[in-house]
Amino acid sequence: MLTESMEDYLEMIYRLNEEKGYVRAVDLAEALNVQPSSVTRMIQKLREEGLIQYEKYRHIALTDKGRRLGYFLVWRDTVLKEFLTLLNAKVGVEEQVEGIEHYITPPTMCLIRNLIMYFRAHPEGLEEVQAMSKLNKYPEG
Amino acid sequence: MLTESMEDYLEMIYRLNEEKGYVRAVDLAEALNVQPSSVTRMIQKLREEGLIQYEKYRHIALTDKGRRLGYFLVWRDTVLKEFLTLLNAKVGVEEQVEGIEHYITPPTMCLIRNLIMYFRAHPEGLEEVQAMSKLNKYPEG
Ligand SMILES: [Mn+2]
Ligand SMILES: [Mn+2]
Repeated sequence: MLTESMEDYLEMIYRLNEEKGYVRAVDLAEALNVQPSSVTRMIQKLREEGLIQYEKYRHIALTDKGRRLGYFLVWRDTVLKEFLTLLNAKVGVEEQVEGIEHYITPPTMCLIRNLIMYFRAHPEGLEEVQAMSKLNKYPEG
Repeated sequence: MLTESMEDYLEMIYRLNEEKGYVRAVDLAEALNVQPSSVTRMIQKLREEGLIQYEKYRHIALTDKGRRLGYFLVWRDTVLKEFLTLLNAKVGVEEQVEGIEHYITPPTMCLIRNLIMYFRAHPEGLEEVQAMSKLNKYPEG
């Protein structure tokens, strides 16, 4: 079980690796806006979990396990943002996803993905849901 | 801005008050399975936020502000559990909601409530979403 912070680091390592083909500790510190010392500590933890390989002064490399999990983390983030955007959330999408993502299990993520696929196939249903926002006051569920 | 823990306490105070008509610190400790000293500390914080009134050896009483927020917290918890159950989440509903609830804003909660109302009105749509679980593998969104 990774901590929220470990998940955020691994997600960013995966993103940077996709983007640039390699990941240096200094890039990670910059991308996450954290101190190099925090990166050093977290790299150590991710290595202990068998998610990355790292030798000092070399690039950070994802193991197979790290690559699979990193892919899931990016996917989870993307799907949740898409879900809130689809629902018509106007503000705080990034912040809400940043918090909730760590608590949602893979099976639930699949269900949310299914919901998105359903509304892609039924745009008239989505319009109906969005139109409810004009009618309903909170909370009278 | 309340902490996660303050929200959980206030939610429980609201629930106990609805259930029994009054709330004692000892009932709160028992319901949340925490030490009386933790309850004492949290009562102090909730009082500073103007959410409850409390004199030692007396009952905990919700202020108007506390009652409104407590109502929202219980509603949020209920709606999120209903949402995951509707989607057909098989395991971990309680645990997931316990974590994600604190990060979801009131406007987003209303959108999720709308989604539930939509599927109540369109059970055939819900069947279609649930049937997708049998077809799709994760993650290929
Ligand atoms: Mn996060
Ligand atoms: Mn909670």
